[in-house]
Amino acid sequence: MNTIDINSDLGESFGQWHMGDDARMLTVVSSANIACGFHAGDPAGMRATLKAAAANQVCCGAHVGYPDLQGFGRREMNMADDDLTASVIYQIGALAGLASAAGTRVSYVKPHGALYNTIAHDRRQGMAVINAIKDYDARLPLVVLAGSPLAQLAREQGLQVVAEAFADRAYHQDGTLVSRREAGAVLHDTQAIASRMVQLVREGGVVSVEGVFTPISAQSICVHGDSPGAVEMAIKVRAALEQEGIQIAPFCPGEQQ
Amino acid sequence: MNTIDINSDLGESFGQWHMGDDARMLTVVSSANIACGFHAGDPAGMRATLKAAAANQVCCGAHVGYPDLQGFGRREMNMADDDLTASVIYQIGALAGLASAAGTRVSYVKPHGALYNTIAHDRRQGMAVINAIKDYDARLPLVVLAGSPLAQLAREQGLQVVAEAFADRAYHQDGTLVSRREAGAVLHDTQAIASRMVQLVREGGVVSVEGVFTPISAQSICVHGDSPGAVEMAIKVRAALEQEGIQIAPFCPGEQQ
Amino acid sequence: MNTIDINSDLGESFGQWHMGDDARMLTVVSSANIACGFHAGDPAGMRATLKAAAANQVCCGAHVGYPDLQGFGRREMNMADDDLTASVIYQIGALAGLASAAGTRVSYVKPHGALYNTIAHDRRQGMAVINAIKDYDARLPLVVLAGSPLAQLAREQGLQVVAEAFADRAYHQDGTLVSRREAGAVLHDTQAIASRMVQLVREGGVVSVEGVFTPISAQSICVHGDSPGAVEMAIKVRAALEQEGIQIAPFCPGEQQ
Amino acid sequence: MNTIDINSDLGESFGQWHMGDDARMLTVVSSANIACGFHAGDPAGMRATLKAAAANQVCCGAHVGYPDLQGFGRREMNMADDDLTASVIYQIGALAGLASAAGTRVSYVKPHGALYNTIAHDRRQGMAVINAIKDYDARLPLVVLAGSPLAQLAREQGLQVVAEAFADRAYHQDGTLVSRREAGAVLHDTQAIASRMVQLVREGGVVSVEGVFTPISAQSICVHGDSPGAVEMAIKVRAALEQEGIQIAPFCPGEQQ
Repeated sequence: MNTIDINSDLGESFGQWHMGDDARMLTVVSSANIACGFHAGDPAGMRATLKAAAANQVCCGAHVGYPDLQGFGRREMNMADDDLTASVIYQIGALAGLASAAGTRVSYVKPHGALYNTIAHDRRQGMAVINAIKDYDARLPLVVLAGSPLAQLAREQGLQVVAEAFADRAYHQDGTLVSRREAGAVLHDTQAIASRMVQLVREGGVVSVEGVFTPISAQSICVHGDSPGAVEMAIKVRAALEQEGIQIAPFCPGEQQ
Repeated sequence: MNTIDINSDLGESFGQWHMGDDARMLTVVSSANIACGFHAGDPAGMRATLKAAAANQVCCGAHVGYPDLQGFGRREMNMADDDLTASVIYQIGALAGLASAAGTRVSYVKPHGALYNTIAHDRRQGMAVINAIKDYDARLPLVVLAGSPLAQLAREQGLQVVAEAFADRAYHQDGTLVSRREAGAVLHDTQAIASRMVQLVREGGVVSVEGVFTPISAQSICVHGDSPGAVEMAIKVRAALEQEGIQIAPFCPGEQQ
Repeated sequence: MNTIDINSDLGESFGQWHMGDDARMLTVVSSANIACGFHAGDPAGMRATLKAAAANQVCCGAHVGYPDLQGFGRREMNMADDDLTASVIYQIGALAGLASAAGTRVSYVKPHGALYNTIAHDRRQGMAVINAIKDYDARLPLVVLAGSPLAQLAREQGLQVVAEAFADRAYHQDGTLVSRREAGAVLHDTQAIASRMVQLVREGGVVSVEGVFTPISAQSICVHGDSPGAVEMAIKVRAALEQEGIQIAPFCPGEQQ
Repeated sequence: MNTIDINSDLGESFGQWHMGDDARMLTVVSSANIACGFHAGDPAGMRATLKAAAANQVCCGAHVGYPDLQGFGRREMNMADDDLTASVIYQIGALAGLASAAGTRVSYVKPHGALYNTIAHDRRQGMAVINAIKDYDARLPLVVLAGSPLAQLAREQGLQVVAEAFADRAYHQDGTLVSRREAGAVLHDTQAIASRMVQLVREGGVVSVEGVFTPISAQSICVHGDSPGAVEMAIKVRAALEQEGIQIAPFCPGEQQ
């Protein structure tokens, strides 16, 4: 593998509240997960991020979440199937409307926060999200946690699946993420993170907390967007990859002009 | 004129709160103004209304409003241009996403409540809405108050404009609506309303409160959806028109299958 | 026992959306659980319900819920402890402010919907609600599901606990409610419901779905407010109790004028 | 006059979105206008700010606003009288609930943003806010723009009025603020601002943009909380005042422990 995608969460400001440095991050990533107004983002901010993404030839995805601004979509919500399906379609459509007005398009779907974590293993809510994509446009890829049950489920349902790895997260030897509640779950050594991502692309895996090489099949690397030093870490990861001759490119190249 | 459109506001339920009788109203009207979640409507309800509209071959429009659920979009809000433009695009896109998943499409835009009233005469907010349509899809017709400054402005800006008359509202002889604050602003005699709408289509106007015939150029008749007896009044108006050989048809027939 | 309280959920309208018949229900119940704006209710509506409750000498409680208008507070939300505690205090305070302006006061707290169901058995969220009451005013009684682990927990924490039974719900012989997912969970025979509530007060229990008498220790009977026929059922229950010489009175009489 | 109050807007974070440096600002001001969840603030954040204010012996006021998170309460909203009155009571009550749980209390009311600006001259909405205070607790002072028609109206209605001047705003010779749309409306020279505030306290006025001394009767100085350098400016203003022997103290000293 000589090419990899880098994605990050963008468009997360809301009203007078700013979050992240979208302008700089858009010079680093190849795919932008853009908040759709339910857990973050407002129409004018989403549009501005879409325009900036288009100007940087960054691929845009719908970062769909639970309707929970106060909790930033990070609190599990037990939504009924039809509410969840319709909410995901609503968000994709809203972003697609703004994208077309900004000269770009929605090229993929990535669930956010508690929705992402829940559907990684919860079949009912997972099917509700899968059905949203099938009902809206079955050709849209779904970005999922590498190795999750959702990856298998979405493929069975005929969706194009893009598995992602997290640049700054530790993995267990079975390929699952170390829980944030455990020490060492989040990595902070930028240089180590960058080398690790080179290994991921070159060798198809990383060293787990148990100390053994663990295969992870990922077509995209997620770098966080809103922590201090986020952009610097993303720049380091990208530079390390490019230095190794690995090209950074969106997983959805055919969808761009 | 042998054909006229009848439109009504639908999809205005929210969560556990029900409003209007969408199922019955969809058997009467030819165009459905569907709430987009800002002043009313939620994703699952919007989708259900879109499906029912498609089943009844009723044309669907985006009923865009201010972001004010508590006020039902009936309170003027001094939104900045780019916020208003992006909010209108967001709402159209969200409805369009759900429409495509429901086997139909968004065929026009009609502003709701305080937004409707404000842009009828406020050039700044009017331009923000016009720009939203131009940026999203310049071919979408805009439904406006017959005779309003907005009608002229939108035409100048190259939009397709559909003027509407209100079935149950009294008019002044200059073609403006009698303010709801004045007695007699809202008509209640169903039979008189029906006859009046026949006159509107046949003669191109109605008798104003000043007692003189007043020309009103309208391509659609708006019947209210959420008051008691709303469906019955709509049925009476439609029946009276059809009895006179006037056909009820959406103003956007080419957009339907 | 010669006295019992009857409580119902009121103040659940929101903006233009009406729910329930507060005016009539306030002539039947002795305690009103008033929505606080998070799952239902808006400030002007809450105030109107408080005024009507005061006029009917009905005791007012804070019906606190998750911040989820669209889901009517019926979707579980995994709120952090401090968010939940502060949210409950916020709601009690908001209602107390409106109550004092309406000539009455908040006399108890009753969690709503998914929050009610969750804390009946979830110790973490239960403690968050208990701490809210202790931090705000430790003398406020907490209304809980009769026989639930929460009842025990709240008593251990020093709160005054009021256990309630549901007039129209079937019980298992261990005193737990039959799940709404099972047939027969909700009773519909108004006469049978009324007789059942007389038995509850007179004999301290009801006949369970397993056919045996089941003790239920309850100081209040909850009648639903928003279903068709709700007021009629409440009237029947009250009449049956009064006919047996049982007095309907709030559990917080000392708190009233 | 040898004593003056300094107030600032605090508690304006919302969920994951941070705003302002409450911890530092609370070491400078004597009164904290705390957002109540309508235009900014969430329950846990409000509570944290109240605790910090109590620890710093800073007086707490309810910073009430329009229900418009996305617009940060800066967009005029045409709210009906009873909605506005009840909304203001709701916000004061919610903050009062959290304040009592934080060991402090609500000592005054200050409207925010568009509500502040609107009621400075709009009698209808002004009366709705005044009535909220009278209905909730007529002893709560109302903070108003010095010299505004609202100051007169509120006094006529029996309220205790606290007039405030803005440290970084230019004034016309009639005592009105220079509109933000005009150049020079906002002052940036920290040293000049500090000297100006000394003049305000010592001489009872400042030099207007027309170049003449303009009397301004103010019992409090408002320093902004959320702009870059806000805390530094506040520190400079306070230091300059104290250097002149002017004591910084809340206008509501009797209300503190």
